[in-house]
Amino acid sequence: MNRDEYRHVTVIGVGLIGGSIGLALKERCAPVRIAGVGRRRESLDAALAAGAIDTAHLDASQCAAESDVVVLATPVGAFAHHLRTLAPVLRPGVLVTDAGSTKSDVVRIAEEVLGSGGPFVGSHPMAGSERKGVEFSRADLYEGAVCIVTPTPRTPADLVERAERFWRTLGMRVIRMGPGEHDIALARVSHLPHLLSAVLMGLPDGADLAVSGPGFRDMTRLAGGDPEMWRDIVLTNRGAIVAALDAFTGRLGELRSLVERGDASEIEAFLAEAKRKRDEALRQTPATATGE
Amino acid sequence: MNRDEYRHVTVIGVGLIGGSIGLALKERCAPVRIAGVGRRRESLDAALAAGAIDTAHLDASQCAAESDVVVLATPVGAFAHHLRTLAPVLRPGVLVTDAGSTKSDVVRIAEEVLGSGGPFVGSHPMAGSERKGVEFSRADLYEGAVCIVTPTPRTPADLVERAERFWRTLGMRVIRMGPGEHDIALARVSHLPHLLSAVLMGLPDGADLAVSGPGFRDMTRLAGGDPEMWRDIVLTNRGAIVAALDAFTGRLGELRSLVERGDASEIEAFLAEAKRKRDEALRQTPATATGE
Repeated sequence: MNRDEYRHVTVIGVGLIGGSIGLALKERCAPVRIAGVGRRRESLDAALAAGAIDTAHLDASQCAAESDVVVLATPVGAFAHHLRTLAPVLRPGVLVTDAGSTKSDVVRIAEEVLGSGGPFVGSHPMAGSERKGVEFSRADLYEGAVCIVTPTPRTPADLVERAERFWRTLGMRVIRMGPGEHDIALARVSHLPHLLSAVLMGLPDGADLAVSGPGFRDMTRLAGGDPEMWRDIVLTNRGAIVAALDAFTGRLGELRSLVERGDASEIEAFLAEAKRKRDEALRQTPATATGE
Repeated sequence: MNRDEYRHVTVIGVGLIGGSIGLALKERCAPVRIAGVGRRRESLDAALAAGAIDTAHLDASQCAAESDVVVLATPVGAFAHHLRTLAPVLRPGVLVTDAGSTKSDVVRIAEEVLGSGGPFVGSHPMAGSERKGVEFSRADLYEGAVCIVTPTPRTPADLVERAERFWRTLGMRVIRMGPGEHDIALARVSHLPHLLSAVLMGLPDGADLAVSGPGFRDMTRLAGGDPEMWRDIVLTNRGAIVAALDAFTGRLGELRSLVERGDASEIEAFLAEAKRKRDEALRQTPATATGE
């Protein structure tokens, strides 16, 4: 690692994600200076108190001009605003990346605002929790987790490599995918599960919940996620999410028919196939892959 | 506790559930004698080796005649067969109960075979895991978990109390419900989540799974459950499960419409309501409620 790459880093959004980026950089790339950008004074004060940032700003233009790296770590709905603030002040050679959970919309907007030959490279560091706020930040949040980096055919190769190096510096394993490919995969393994979790949480009444166990608790953990962040994820990946919902509903309907007519052998075969696939996936997925 | 209540106990089914009942009784009610009934010699040998049972039998009639308590701990589909084996040999004053995950069908069959004025009281000890086999048995599996006891209006009060005392002896908190009431609640908080988990597991391909995280892993944990056991649960609670599936699919369809038309405020409100309900449920559910 060339430490000069990270003399000054701006993190826009000082919640769990941005705060953990700050803590990890300070632990691994001292003497880096972290400028934190937030929309509320209290969040910025909390980030300063947590030691996740060195300076606090309500506007990215105050600090981004001198940064080597700028990371967008707000809900994705705020990205367009911040990118327009950044555009006129960024210095040559900067890397702009993000921690957003959807990529097609984000990359399209970033290339519109900043240009398609750089300095933007889309990223999705898959770590986090349903808890929100800089007070849950951890320097090791990203350690061993996967970061998906999503260049387009127009992104300069050396810039892609810098983005990948940035996340590896935080301890992440990097996977490269196209933005659209990312969104379809994440709709299936992350966005759909989140919506199922929220719908499931809505069904039982208080008496039902009194007899619920860890299975129900696991299945509804995602429903505890930040509604604003997830609203933005849903809004920026509607096509792939609707497709995943339809595929899911179709299969659920098939299973419903088996249940209604009490088809013992087909029900068992359906459940056995799911179990087989899960057991195989557990064998193949490295134990180090963590995070959302 | 009157230790004479548990001089001799027959456990039919020597897997995780039956094995843990044996281990817990031996720890808490020594010098109890546990007779284990299994359909395969190897399972019985494993249960003997684990110290979960004292004697091994391929047929319940060999040992049930001298038992104070008989517990059915096989998949519920095998209950009718075992109840018919028990009927002619049970001694007066015996308590027959079970560890099945559905109750209306089970209680109806048990009352048909053994009579409606006893000796059967339906039970659902809500503890377990997706792992199968006596080698995962633990003496503390039931400690602090909830057991639902499901008498009918015809079950003698003293027999209900004996059944409740039995599960409390194993460290459980007892809740009393009607069998139908039990099945509707469990369809919502356990059987529906299980089917959702299995369907979700079927959707992604290998490339999708490579970028899945702990959210997906949590949401598909239930899909790792024993297909035979879950086939029987589904078959013995079809009405309530179909109703729960339909309620779920209806709400999922509403959410799909919001996603398709990109209704930001309604999507956020939907997610926020799920989060509110979950946060409230976590506050109200005692931390000691564990198990399925």
